[in-house]
Parts: sequence; C-alpha cells; structure tokens
Amino acid sequence: MSQEKKRIPVAVLGATGMVGQRFIEMLADHPWFELAAVTGSERRAGQRYGDAVVWRLPSTPPAATMDLPLLAPDAEFDAPIVFSALPTDVAESIEPLLASRGHAVFSNASSYRMAEDVPLVVAEVNADHLQIVEQQRSRRGWKGFIVTNGNCVAIPVALALKPLQDAFGVRKVLITTMQAITGAGYPGVASYDILGNVIPYINTEEEKVEIETQKFLGAYRDGAITSAPITVSAQCNRVAVRDGHMVCVSVELGRDDVSSEDLIAAFREFRGEPQQRGLPSAPTEPIVVRDERDRPQPARDADVGEGMAVVVGRVRPCSILGHKFVLLGNNTIRGAAGASILNAELMADQGVIGA
Amino acid sequence: MSQEKKRIPVAVLGATGMVGQRFIEMLADHPWFELAAVTGSERRAGQRYGDAVVWRLPSTPPAATMDLPLLAPDAEFDAPIVFSALPTDVAESIEPLLASRGHAVFSNASSYRMAEDVPLVVAEVNADHLQIVEQQRSRRGWKGFIVTNGNCVAIPVALALKPLQDAFGVRKVLITTMQAITGAGYPGVASYDILGNVIPYINTEEEKVEIETQKFLGAYRDGAITSAPITVSAQCNRVAVRDGHMVCVSVELGRDDVSSEDLIAAFREFRGEPQQRGLPSAPTEPIVVRDERDRPQPARDADVGEGMAVVVGRVRPCSILGHKFVLLGNNTIRGAAGASILNAELMADQGVIGA
Amino acid sequence: MSQEKKRIPVAVLGATGMVGQRFIEMLADHPWFELAAVTGSERRAGQRYGDAVVWRLPSTPPAATMDLPLLAPDAEFDAPIVFSALPTDVAESIEPLLASRGHAVFSNASSYRMAEDVPLVVAEVNADHLQIVEQQRSRRGWKGFIVTNGNCVAIPVALALKPLQDAFGVRKVLITTMQAITGAGYPGVASYDILGNVIPYINTEEEKVEIETQKFLGAYRDGAITSAPITVSAQCNRVAVRDGHMVCVSVELGRDDVSSEDLIAAFREFRGEPQQRGLPSAPTEPIVVRDERDRPQPARDADVGEGMAVVVGRVRPCSILGHKFVLLGNNTIRGAAGASILNAELMADQGVIGA
Amino acid sequence: MSQEKKRIPVAVLGATGMVGQRFIEMLADHPWFELAAVTGSERRAGQRYGDAVVWRLPSTPPAATMDLPLLAPDAEFDAPIVFSALPTDVAESIEPLLASRGHAVFSNASSYRMAEDVPLVVAEVNADHLQIVEQQRSRRGWKGFIVTNGNCVAIPVALALKPLQDAFGVRKVLITTMQAITGAGYPGVASYDILGNVIPYINTEEEKVEIETQKFLGAYRDGAITSAPITVSAQCNRVAVRDGHMVCVSVELGRDDVSSEDLIAAFREFRGEPQQRGLPSAPTEPIVVRDERDRPQPARDADVGEGMAVVVGRVRPCSILGHKFVLLGNNTIRGAAGASILNAELMADQGVIGA
Repeated sequence: MSQEKKRIPVAVLGATGMVGQRFIEMLADHPWFELAAVTGSERRAGQRYGDAVVWRLPSTPPAATMDLPLLAPDAEFDAPIVFSALPTDVAESIEPLLASRGHAVFSNASSYRMAEDVPLVVAEVNADHLQIVEQQRSRRGWKGFIVTNGNCVAIPVALALKPLQDAFGVRKVLITTMQAITGAGYPGVASYDILGNVIPYINTEEEKVEIETQKFLGAYRDGAITSAPITVSAQCNRVAVRDGHMVCVSVELGRDDVSSEDLIAAFREFRGEPQQRGLPSAPTEPIVVRDERDRPQPARDADVGEGMAVVVGRVRPCSILGHKFVLLGNNTIRGAAGASILNAELMADQGVIGA
Repeated sequence: MSQEKKRIPVAVLGATGMVGQRFIEMLADHPWFELAAVTGSERRAGQRYGDAVVWRLPSTPPAATMDLPLLAPDAEFDAPIVFSALPTDVAESIEPLLASRGHAVFSNASSYRMAEDVPLVVAEVNADHLQIVEQQRSRRGWKGFIVTNGNCVAIPVALALKPLQDAFGVRKVLITTMQAITGAGYPGVASYDILGNVIPYINTEEEKVEIETQKFLGAYRDGAITSAPITVSAQCNRVAVRDGHMVCVSVELGRDDVSSEDLIAAFREFRGEPQQRGLPSAPTEPIVVRDERDRPQPARDADVGEGMAVVVGRVRPCSILGHKFVLLGNNTIRGAAGASILNAELMADQGVIGA
Repeated sequence: MSQEKKRIPVAVLGATGMVGQRFIEMLADHPWFELAAVTGSERRAGQRYGDAVVWRLPSTPPAATMDLPLLAPDAEFDAPIVFSALPTDVAESIEPLLASRGHAVFSNASSYRMAEDVPLVVAEVNADHLQIVEQQRSRRGWKGFIVTNGNCVAIPVALALKPLQDAFGVRKVLITTMQAITGAGYPGVASYDILGNVIPYINTEEEKVEIETQKFLGAYRDGAITSAPITVSAQCNRVAVRDGHMVCVSVELGRDDVSSEDLIAAFREFRGEPQQRGLPSAPTEPIVVRDERDRPQPARDADVGEGMAVVVGRVRPCSILGHKFVLLGNNTIRGAAGASILNAELMADQGVIGA
Repeated sequence: MSQEKKRIPVAVLGATGMVGQRFIEMLADHPWFELAAVTGSERRAGQRYGDAVVWRLPSTPPAATMDLPLLAPDAEFDAPIVFSALPTDVAESIEPLLASRGHAVFSNASSYRMAEDVPLVVAEVNADHLQIVEQQRSRRGWKGFIVTNGNCVAIPVALALKPLQDAFGVRKVLITTMQAITGAGYPGVASYDILGNVIPYINTEEEKVEIETQKFLGAYRDGAITSAPITVSAQCNRVAVRDGHMVCVSVELGRDDVSSEDLIAAFREFRGEPQQRGLPSAPTEPIVVRDERDRPQPARDADVGEGMAVVVGRVRPCSILGHKFVLLGNNTIRGAAGASILNAELMADQGVIGA
C-alpha cells in the first residue's frame, strides 16, 4: 500500500457535525486518502462546505475542503471509501444504500454495530472480524459493505483488555467512567448541567459499553462472530472535561497468579496489526503506561500518540476482582474518527478496498 | 436535653481553616451549643479571630465569632465540648492533651480514627461504638475523650450501606469516587491541575475509605470494636466540582433474593438514633432517594437536608456484584463538620457530656 | 398593604423555563402574593405543572405549585398580577392581550422595554416612571398595563449609577461584562463553547445594556419619559460562571471634585422607595460595598441580600474617565425575576393594583 | 544567521517552574539555539533535571534536557544567551551577576523592566529600544546585558496598539482583562478561588499593564527611552481559563477620521522586524483579525501562530473613546517565553550576540 502513488478518494457523511469535523481534520494531508466528497443535511445541500459549516475545532479547517460542495445525504459520488459521522437514525437508512452502491462504509454510528454480519472492529483488537464482510455482502447482496468502530468508551476499554485477555484471560470487568462533553456532540450537554457538576447518567451508554466490549473481544469462527463470555458492568458519568474519557477499571482475570507487573508488561508489549503493518494512523504504542501515581489525566494525556493511544495508569491489586487500573482514551479521535480511519487503512493495506 | 435553657460552651480548634470555618458557620445560632473559644496557629495567636481569618465560605461570618480572640493550639479554655479541625500532625499531640484536661474532643482529623479505643462514628450508623470511650478514658487516664468522625467519603458510604447491612447483609463493596475540591482544604488543589481535568489519585484516600467503612459498619461487643468483614475496594478521583462527593457503588449483599425496590425501600425507611432523638442537626431523612435517572448531581443536590442527608439514585442491578447505585454526600458538612456536631449532639442528648 | 390578610393571586407566564422557575421559587411563601396560575407552551397545556416541568434549580420546587394545571399561553384566569417569563416573540402578542383583559403584567421580556409608554423600572431607581402606565392605558385602551424590568446587566448597572447620578451627575459610562451562563436560559450556552473559555459576544446584549441604562436613569416629566443624556459603551462577554454577572465600570461624573470615598459613601447611603416602604423583597442595603481588594466575586457574593443587592468593590480612580469600580448583580434574581416581583410589590403597596 | 551551522548554547534560569518549562519546550529543536544549561533552586541543585522537575505541560519533555544537571542559581556555565524565568526577588540579584559575567540575559522577570537603561521589548514593536544596552553596559560596567520582555497582558496590548499608533496615533486606552490561570504560575490560583468564579484583582497587574504599555510604545532617542504619552487605564480579572488572556480594549486615536475598516487594515498589514528578518519564532502575521462576531476565544484561538500571534476581533465604534475591540494573547508563549526567545533571535540575527 505504502508504495502507491495515487491517493484513494474518500467521502465524509455528516461532515458538518463535530465527528465529521474530526474526520476532515484527520484526513487533511492523509498519505493514502484524499477527501473528495462531503455530505450534510438535506437543508444545506448545495452550499459550499465552508459556508455550511461552523468550524468548532481549535484547528484551522483545511482550505481545500472548504470549497467542496456539500452533497445531500443520498447523493451519488465517486469514492470507494466512505466515513460515516451520521446521526443514528439517518445512518440506518443511508449506510445500507451506500453499501449497496459499492462503497466501503466505515461508520461511527451505532445503528449496525450489533448486527451479526457487521464487524465491530478496533484494528488492534479484532481485525479478524473484518472477514465477516463477505457474509454481509453475500447475504445482503451488496457490492460494498459496512464496518463499524464502536462506542467511545468501549473502544479504549477493549484495547486495554485485549493484551490481558490474550495473556491471562478476562472473566469480569467492572468499570466506572468520567466522560468528556465532546462525547455528546454539539451543542450536546448544556453548560448549566455540567459546569462544576457531574451527571451520573448518559443515555444508552452503559448498555453500549457492556455489549460492545463483549463483541470486540469476541471470536470470529466459521463465518460467525461470538461475543466473549466476559461479564461487563458499567457506570457512566459525564464530567466537566473537554476531551478524553477517563475509565476506572476493576478486572477479574482467568488466572490467579498474575501480578500488577505482569499486567503492566502485557500493556506495554502489546502491538496489533496496525503497528505491524505500520499504518499511517497507528500509534507506535497502542497502550502507553504511565508510572506516576496521578496519571493519566485528560488535560495532560488526551493527545498522547496523536490521540490514538490509550493511556493506562495506577495498575494495582483490587481486593474484590483482583486488579484495578485507570485508563484514558481520546473520545473523538481514538474513540471515533481515528478508529474509523484506522479500520479503513487496515482494509486498504490488506488490498480489500481501494485497489 | 432539649429542655435545657443554657447552651453548652464549645471550642473550635483550627478555626481559621476551611473545615474550621464550616464548624463556625454551623455553630452560629446552634440551639444547644455556644461558641466560646477558637484556636489557630501559634503564629496568629492573640489576634482577633476576624483579623486572623480569611473567610472563604459564601456566607457572612457570624459577627459574634469575629470578636473572639484566637487562642494558641495548646491554650487552656473553658468549654466541655471541643471540635477539632486540626491538621493531622497537630491533632496528634493536641487532641490527647485536651482530652486529658477533660474536654470531649470531637475530631475531624484522621490521627486517631483507627485507634482501637477511639470510636469512629457516624451517628446514624454506629452510635453504640461511643461506649468505647469508657475503655479509652480508663486505659489512658483521661478525664475527657476523643471521638472521631471519619473520612468524607467513608461517612456517606457507611451511611448508605447501613440499612443494606441491617436488612440483607453486605459482603463486598466496590466504589469509584468523583470528589469535590473542597475536600482538599485551602489552597488545596491547584486550579492548573483540575480545571477541565480529572485527577485519578488522592493521597491516602483509598486506604482510608476502605478501612474506615469497615470500622463504621463493625460491631461493638464486650468493650471492643471489630471491623465488619466486608471487602471494600475504592478508586478515588478528584473532579472540577466545588461541593459534594459523588460515589458510584457496586455491592454484593448477603442474600440473593433482593430487588432494586428492596434496596430503595431500605434506603427510604432508614432512620438512626439522631432521627429518633430529633437532634438539631439530624436530617429528617438521612438517605434521600431520587427517582430521576440522572440524579444525584453535586450542583443540584449537595444541600439536600441542609447538607446532612446522603442522596442516592440509579439503584439497579449490577451484573457482577448484584446491585449498583450512585450516592452523593456533602463533603464539608455531612462528611466533616456536620458529622462531628451530630456526634456531639448525640452524646449531649445521652447526658454523657455537658451536664 | 402589609396589614392585608388576603394574598393577591398572581400568575406566572412561561412557567417551565428557567426564569419562570425562579419566579415560582421566589413566590413560594410570598407574604403578599399567592401563585394561582401558571402558563406554558401550547404543546404542554393541560398537563400538571409538576409533570410538565423539568425543575432545574437546586432548590426543591414548592409542592403546591406542582399540582397546578399548566394553562395555554392565551388562557383566561383570575389573577390581578401577572409575571411574564415569556420568550420575546411570544411576549409580543400575549402581554398586550393580558393587559387588555385587565391584568397588571410585570414582564421580564424585552419586547416592550423601549416602548415610549411602557415603564422600564428598577424599583429603587425610577419608581416615578411607573406613572406612565396611565398614558399607556388610555392610549391603548387597556384595563391593565405592562411594566418591564430590563436586561440583567442594565438593572444592576443602573442601580449602582443612580446614587452617583443623584449626587454628582453621570456623563459617561464604559462597561465590560463577564456574564454567567444562566443569563442565557436553558439549554442556553453549549458546554463546548464555555468550558474553560470566554465568549466575547452575546447577541443584542450590548445594545440593550446601553439604551436601557439610559432609560432607567431618564426622567419622567409631563407624561413622558426622556432617556438620560449619558453616553454608555458596553462590551459583553460570557464566562464559565453559574450565577452572577460581573461588570467592570469606568465612569465620568458631572463634577471633578469627587473622591473614591465620596462614591463609596454615596453607594452605602443609597436607599430607594422599596427600602423606605419596607417591601418584602427589598434588600436592606440595595448596594453593598466590599472593602476587600478582590471582591465582589460571583461564587461568593451572588446571594448577598438574597440575591437582590448589587455588590460593589474596588472603587478607585480611573486615569481616563475619573472613577472605576467592579459590580456584581445576581442575574436571575436581581436581574430578572426579583426585579419584576419588587416592581409588583411597589405598585401593590402604592394601592395601584390588587386592591 | 540562518546560514550558520553551529547552534548557540543557551541556558534557562528557573528551569523547573512553569515559564521555565515553556522555555525548554520552545527551545527543543530550535534551529539557532541549543539548550546547554539549566538552573533551579539551591535546594535541588545537583539533581538531574528530569528528577528535579515535575513536568506540568501537556507535552512530552525533551529527552535530552532531562539528563542535564540542575545548576545552582549562581553557578557558572558557558552559554552566551540566558533566558530567565526566575522569580522577581531572585532575578533581582542573579540577573546582574550573569550580565556582569558577559551573558546576554533575556528576562521574563519584572525586576528590571522599568529601569531606564534596560530595554523592555516586544520584537515587533520597539526593536530600536535594544540600542539602550550600550548605555546599560557602559554605565554598569557589564560585559553582558539584560533585555526584558514585559507583562503577559502588556505585550499583546502593545503589539495590537503599535500599528494604530503608527497610522493614527493613540491617545487613550481603556482595557479590561480576563486572564488565564497559567498567568499565575504553579500552584498559582487555588481551584477553590476560580472554579465557576471570577476574581476581579491580580496583585500589581494593573500598574504593570499601564506603565509597561507606555514604555513599549515609547521612543528611543539620543540614548534614552521616553514612555509614550498615552493614558492607559486597566481593570484586570482572573477567569477560569487555562491558556490565553482576553482583553477588551477601548481606544482613542490621534485622529477622528478613522473607520473600523481602517483599524482592521492596519492590524492585518502590520509586520515587524521579526517578520522582515524571518526569525524562527516570528509568526507570519503578528496580528490575526477574525471576522466572526464571537471571536477570539481562548479555547479556540490561543494557539494561532503557534501561540505567537495576537488575535483580534469585534473591531467596532466605541461611543466614548471612538473604537473598541477584543484581543487574545497566549500568556505563556507570546506573553512570556516566546517573547524572550524572539528578542534573543532578533539580537542574534543582528549579530549583537552569539557571534
């Protein structure tokens, strides 16, 4: 792949929203992909992207993108790869339409994550699940396919659990989250609700975290994905943080003879297929372990590995489940746009798309 | 007690600090107690309290207190009851001195909480532990005694667990906290560290929460206190909240046939000795259960029951330990000054002091 | 008035919004007024208020109000006094309708503030402007009338300037504001926009502050109100504060021989008609001056005088305009609901309404 | 200069503090300078820098620097250029010592800013003032010299006023600031004081802003610097923002026939000597004007031009002084470390040092 001269045209669906903007930011100067089309709401279709968008990220929006015309959600365009930042209800009808037209749809929406023939993939964790797209295509009669990337908490949790599962087995995972406001999009959380406050509830979040973690860590065998037999219990909270979801984890492993040092070594040594292939968006170390007793912290560590690494700290014994630790994942990069792009890079590198 | 005309003189040690200020605020217009003496650092001793203190609470400081002279830490004064907001190291030497002089010392310091002859008491939870002061007095040869009130997380946790322990038994408690900055005193947490951030570490906090919860829920029998055989595992975090510690709790009960509704009923029906005696600082309902799915919240619920009630919400099943819920305790009132005052009211009402 | 036994029935329009909730909170246990009717959006009309509202204030909503039926915006009801927390566009059509039906409408909406026959009144500042309601009634053929109370910045600014105008004359006022998020209602400002941020713009705010301050400080003569010939220049900013608008003021007085001490004395001695009449919601001191060099502060001073006083600090020379100082006004109480209620109390006490 | 192969060794004084860390961050990979020595407190001298420092910036500290030994404040070392992030009182004695030893001291401390033979320089504004070092050297008998860079508000204010002064003349400047917490160093502002709050006072800040702005905009003639005859009045506030000082400015120009468009053009066209020379740390546009009505904002614009540009917005008429606008300056980069480094680059490029 890396030898290719010509970049693959890609599209971003729902390009004016917060996740859409992150996609656009991360695709600017991408070595393999070239942003060729953007879609938005029916109402704004036809406008120049730069006129339709209120750019909310601290970065300067890429000049080339500003001049693209904003297409309607169901518009036709040429781009083998499509990144979907659509709202759930819109994604539900548009993503199958685009897959049927032959696009490889990498979706951040939750609509099809739990469909049995749709892979829910963290590239370092369960790249083998991508094989299910063959069943998906044949069953649904699509030329293209849908690949999903999961919830912004489930992704870093699955990533951190993967080396533990490989080395020791994982039986139970009890997690409590402290999630950043950017996880709710824009306008998202009202300032009145979160300034100097904690909200101990995020709609449908706990269910997603629990079942998606199980699917990420599940097995692909004989054309089917089986969720991992891991019990996951989540309590999700919103806190007054801008970027980076913090997660306190207690975990029961499959073996009793494991020390904190063993966990730390497993975290540190972990490398996935993206690292082996040297994909452009792959962090060198997918899991960075901090030794300081008061890290990770969202304000300091959310951008480690360009926001693509999970940062782990405070690995220590738990008197109930055996082990506990804290992890931080950048929710709009590793937990959303970046995860999708990494999945697309992986499939492009495998030669499945964009050839 | 309530018939008494004359109020009992009381002193506040460490009166210029944040917890000291809370004591003074709560003692203004107290029906039974009258603030008669305040102590501060050696350096400021001799100053008028109003000149020595930088009043940091949003309230107006009580005018009468402003004119009291600030006494040195080891000064002698007439006041049967003493509230200690001393730092740990100072408390270690001063509290025994005052107890030996005959004062009933109600201490918010951690120095003697785990001493085996010192009661660590939440008035609604383990009032019977107060009997150990007799052993304390005779063993140490003191005319007075020390009663402690515990960590600002352990107090509301023990209070919420008490009705569960009584009704169903409690085996395991896994908690994750999101604690307010006022828990660290003043200047406490640097704004650089907490603004838009989470700090996943509070020095010695997890240990305190674990062992104090066990002692609170322990038994007094034959002149000795035995900590409860409950496994407690805590992860403590600091968040950008002013008042009110949030705690996510997962609990394994002693019985399997308990529903969320049973827990809620147990919380709601719970009353302790302070409620039965109608103590002035006792909240009508020590545990208030909110039905909304997004409560409690510190910015909205920290002052329920004048800050003396614990607010519980989101009671629901936990796939790992059986039950989970969220609780909120006002850390400087229920978790500090108010807990001490309630203990003193209880012993005054029992006729043990101030007669 | 104070001798009256029977309380005057009042209604709150737009009762489910943030300002509506503040009205309801302040009217609970009001000695003169009794909440008899509440209106809301057409869509929710017919519901029980307690079912229609999401109570967002930290207080417990008054139980009696919870059972009131929510009326449609144009519903008929019996209540001589009406408090309007309607959005501007709705207020524009509903307030005249209610005035024509005979209600005394005290409006927090901006729709009629600058109408020449509608008084814009801060009870301590320009109570005499209320006389214009006679022209209003006769000109418009209404049995009732509309009285407005102004913008949440203009109110405290006018209140602070009034004693200076009386004693020294005021020529120019240059102000820069730092305004709380509650000024924008709910959901109001997105947390993404304000967390750790400042927004240097509030839609139409600067214009309102400038012209309303001039009208408040204007003169009523011969049946007409003339705005004061004071030049006002405002820069308005939103900051991450919950309650309380901070305002930095530079002022040029009509005389050159005025010292900071003269200003402070004028602030402290100021009393208006609400204080002279002892109205229930009148703060004892409408302007409280703090001597500390770092006050007022919203987190500490927003509730001074139950939120009805303006707090002033840092009175000192300005090398350009002569004098400068900082002021704080509670935006939802003094700057909104409380200002309206005080106006109604004043007119009730004058015997104009509710007889 | 840019042709030079060998980088000039530089030292950072007070290297463990917040400004010291910024210097180190900005000097990593600097094309002309190479960090050769770091000093810290007497107490920590001798430790490895990486052991002595608690790195508080979100970036990863440069590995090479971590291994430098921390020198005592008065230690001797080889490095023609010295950047001082010393506290005022230490700077007062150490900086002259180092200047006398022959070092070119670029100081962020306030100790010598107003000394008449010490240049106070913003490289784009008053590079000509650097000539005064000749008087400084001869008068004080030093081989080296001290150049200072001013207060973190005065720097961006002077930078924004410079093109106005050049084109139209400036008579009066009334400013109100909303300053980030990083301006106070570490631990700096207590979280209790600033969370959800505004503090309307910063010790000695207003005086510094006023007199330093006058000196920056003053004239160097015949071996002396004369402060500009501009009246400056400042009100300084601390707000809950991490990086970036916001300033609301009202300005009276020397001419009456100037439009907002004229100001905007002057801002946009402005280039200083650093731009003409293409210094490594010089922003392409020293003043960036945003057209949106709600910009600049610290959370979005603090890093424009790598934190070295001043961002201006909302240029519009002021009814009192003629013109008003909002500006934002990155306080630890443009307002501190970056300003110093730019001054050093300028003098190195002029051939004055490091030859």
